[in-house]
Parts: sequence; structure tokens; C-alpha cells
Amino acid sequence: MDDGSDQAAPDVQARIRDSFGRQGLMRLLGARMDHIAPGRVHIVRPSRPEVTQQHGYVHAGATSAIADSAGGYAALTLFPEGAEVLTVEYKINLLAPASGDHLEAVGTVRRSGRTLSVCQLDVFGVREGKRSLVATGQQTLIRVTTSSGH
Amino acid sequence: MDDGSDQAAPDVQARIRDSFGRQGLMRLLGARMDHIAPGRVHIVRPSRPEVTQQHGYVHAGATSAIADSAGGYAALTLFPEGAEVLTVEYKINLLAPASGDHLEAVGTVRRSGRTLSVCQLDVFGVREGKRSLVATGQQTLIRVTTSSGH
Amino acid sequence: MDDGSDQAAPDVQARIRDSFGRQGLMRLLGARMDHIAPGRVHIVRPSRPEVTQQHGYVHAGATSAIADSAGGYAALTLFPEGAEVLTVEYKINLLAPASGDHLEAVGTVRRSGRTLSVCQLDVFGVREGKRSLVATGQQTLIRVTTSSGH
Amino acid sequence: MDDGSDQAAPDVQARIRDSFGRQGLMRLLGARMDHIAPGRVHIVRPSRPEVTQQHGYVHAGATSAIADSAGGYAALTLFPEGAEVLTVEYKINLLAPASGDHLEAVGTVRRSGRTLSVCQLDVFGVREGKRSLVATGQQTLIRVTTSSGH
Repeated sequence: MDDGSDQAAPDVQARIRDSFGRQGLMRLLGARMDHIAPGRVHIVRPSRPEVTQQHGYVHAGATSAIADSAGGYAALTLFPEGAEVLTVEYKINLLAPASGDHLEAVGTVRRSGRTLSVCQLDVFGVREGKRSLVATGQQTLIRVTTSSGH
Repeated sequence: MDDGSDQAAPDVQARIRDSFGRQGLMRLLGARMDHIAPGRVHIVRPSRPEVTQQHGYVHAGATSAIADSAGGYAALTLFPEGAEVLTVEYKINLLAPASGDHLEAVGTVRRSGRTLSVCQLDVFGVREGKRSLVATGQQTLIRVTTSSGH
Repeated sequence: MDDGSDQAAPDVQARIRDSFGRQGLMRLLGARMDHIAPGRVHIVRPSRPEVTQQHGYVHAGATSAIADSAGGYAALTLFPEGAEVLTVEYKINLLAPASGDHLEAVGTVRRSGRTLSVCQLDVFGVREGKRSLVATGQQTLIRVTTSSGH
Repeated sequence: MDDGSDQAAPDVQARIRDSFGRQGLMRLLGARMDHIAPGRVHIVRPSRPEVTQQHGYVHAGATSAIADSAGGYAALTLFPEGAEVLTVEYKINLLAPASGDHLEAVGTVRRSGRTLSVCQLDVFGVREGKRSLVATGQQTLIRVTTSSGH
């Protein structure tokens, strides 16, 4: 189920990568899309000194930001072109210091509704290929339709 | 109570500003400490294109990051030197697009316990001096004691 | 604002008390409406052995249930007849054992939107007239319109 | 993984069933322990008119109460005798009306720490043997040690 062989349709992937590319914060954090499956998106971010908190670990805010984006795009994979999603709210538990070579956030849709969607958010620290769970959360999103044809 | 006239003791303020200065993410986001009261901390962040999401609004992750920091430092104002706090979890509702000249995050302690503290998090968009609530949340923190005297 | 002198319009109060009276769980828990203001509702529940957890304190589920109802009805006070609200999600921190003569849950609207509303939930233990905060939470609700005229 | 063949050790099961038996609210709601595995507990509750909200569906508070208990006992399965857990906080999304012949709440430990544990909470409506997800949540618990030998 998580072997990475499942890929969203090419047009869905293109649409999501295009949207992601317009996210200034993701660029600032050095995050990139790693995998786009139907209902599941992975975002990775190399560890960098710029996103630490005062103890030298990755700041909860940086961890949450990529988790939030992973969930939002996971929800978006299930909607047709022209739909957008906005985060209504999320809750996240920080389980362990977010260290490692890079972080990997996985957003997975638990329920995709007409108006509201709910995603699970998991963030893993990856060190020498070994993943350990560093944060886990839950997110509610609302679907909005852009007024223009875009 | 919220007139800004209440200030934490100078040594508490110095300790908190010092810790804040070591937060790489806050520097990256351009955030700065605005006010430090006992049990309440304000952090402000000018609007900048770097922290947007795909629609040009401030990314939920950037909004959450300063809210999380404001709550953590609010809890810290009530602890003696040598204590530290870590975020256990938080939940945040994004109520409105986070636009304006700058954002102001206010963390307020609701309960300060021996082990756990709970803070309310409010984030306001400020445009020409007028504040409107753009996000509100709730955060749980755990007190840890640094082993060294540092 | 919190002196209890503010009352919702009589028809709003009647509508809300009628809806509350149909909530089997509230009856089971012995809860009753105490005050209905525009955007704020108080529900009280006498302490009873039936709603304890294993240590003899009030079960978190009973505390949460009246908090959830208080928030839902607070949101409903701001809507016209025919509208209903459903809880999308809530988060609650249990701060202290919920003991005392009775519990008082206060739901307060923070944002009333066309589709979604957000409420703050506070639960107080009251012992000999003295209130202490035992739980605090945050809730998201969605407005739905009943299809019938009812 | 979820075939019910995994059982916690008999003494762990006895300890947990004993604690559950002292929960007045669970008795009031008609809930019973269904399965106790290491790190995972299932609680079921037949549908009954007493726990409805105003539309005749199961009240979010009743759904949450059994979810909260399932998570708490799941965490407890991993601790030695004499340890207890208290709910620090939880967040729950109500995804669908909680109808069906009975509800089944499943609490699963995501992280079991020395002080804090984090559980996933899922509640299913079961109708004629078919399960559908009606609520999902996340919970933080704190381990406490009873002072007596009890």
C-alpha cells in the first residue's frame, strides 16, 4: 500500500505540482513533493539549520507546515480541476525531536466529502534510510471552487 | 489586562529574548518578540511574499509557527531559570485569510502546571492598526529541565 | 459581557430549549440549560456517581458531552429559524479532575461564518459557588438547513 | 493485524476489565469491552435512544466518550500494574451520523512514552456486520502512578 507504485493520473500530478510550486513557504523551507498518489501525498524537506528552534531541533512550525501541505494536497488529488481546498483546522502531536537527514510528511485522506475532507498527517524523521515517526496529526479541509475557469 | 502595560520582570524578558534569538525558523520568517507579560507573549511578523501559500495568502504553517512560539514562550515566562518547555501538541483553526500589514500572534497561559501547561493561541491580522482574528488555537506544553546549568 | 444579564431573544431561547429537550444524552446525564445569550450558552450538570470514570471523578466523556452541546447551541443562537448545526470536530484539554457540586459548561462563539462556526468551550467545576476551570476546548461546527419547514 | 487473534496477557486483561467495570459512565452508556490486545482496545456500545442528540443520531459526546475510553485503556495495556493513565486532551472529527446496530470504538497506541502516550481513536458504526468509519480522533494521555499498592 505504501510501496510508492501507486501514482495519481499525470494531469492530477501536474496540477498539484503546479500549485505546490506557487507556495512561497514551501520554497523557503526547502520542501519538495516526493510522491503523489490518489488520496495520499508525500512531501520531503532536508534538514537545514534555518528551521530550528532554540535547541537545534526542527521547529514544530516547520514540521507542521509540511504536514499541513501534505494533507491539503492529498485531499486535492481526489477533486476535479478547478476545485481548491483550504485548511479549516488541524491538530498535531509532536512525538519526538524532528531530527535526521530529512523529514518526510505523509498526508492521507480518511474521508473525502462534498464540502469537508479529513486527513491523517504523519511526519517521519529519516536517518540513513530508517524512518521514525516524529509527529502525527489530523486535519479538516474545506473544498472551495475558484470562480474563474483557472 | 491587555493594555500592554504589564511587563514580565527584566531577567525573564532577557531569558526569553535570548531563547527566541536562537530560533532559526523565527528569523527565517522575519518574526520578532513584541511584548512579554507574565503568562502572555506577543510575536509579530510583517507580511512577506516568501511565506505565502498558492493563493498569495500567508501559509497556515507560517501562521501556526508564530502562534506555537507565542504559546511556548508565554508558558516559559512562568517558570524559573533553567526550565524549558516543549510543545506536546496544538490545534489551530484558520478562520480567515491571514492578510494585512503584519500578523500578531498572542499566546496566553490558561493553566500552568508542574508538568503540563495549556495555552490559548490567537493570531490577528493587522491592517492600518485594525486587528481582526485570523486564527485561534489551543496548545499543550511539557516542562523539561535542562540537565546542564545552561 | 459575562454578567449573565444578556439574554437571547425569547423565540431564540424557546427554539434552543426545545432542541435541547430532544437530546437524550443530555437527559441521561442530568444536564440542563442554564443561560442562553446571543453567541453564548451555559449548560450545568449536577455531580452524580453515574458519570464517573474509574477513579470516581467525572468521566472526560461526560465533561466533553456538555461542552460540545454548549458550543453547538451557542452557534445556533446566531442563526435564523430552520438552521441547524452539526459538530465537525472538537478538541478538549482536561485540566483538572472534574469534581464539585456541579459542572458548568460555557460555549462561546469566536467566529460565526456562513458555513462554519468556531466556538470556545470552557468547563468549570463549581463547589460552594466557587468556579475553577476543569476543561477547555475548541470546536468547529457546520451549519445545515433542515429540508422541511420544521 | 485486526483479526482479533492477538490478546493481551490474562493479567493485563483482568486489570483492564476491572478498571473498566468501575467506570460509571460506560455502564450508563451500555458500553462493554470487546477486545484487549497489546496497545489496542475495542469498546462496543449498542445503539440506544438514550444517547441521541436532537436529530435522533448518537450524540457526539457518547461517541467521544467510548473513543476516549478505548484510547485510555489501549495505553494502559502497555504499562505495568500500578500505573494509571489520565486523558490530557483529545481531538475528534465526527465524520458521519453515528447510526447502526452498535458502535465500535478502537483505540490504538501510536506512541507509548515514559510520561506521555498518544493514541489514535476510530469509531465505526456497524450495521448487519458492515463497518463504516463515523469518527476519528487523536488523544494524548499522561501516565500517573497510584501512590497505594493498589
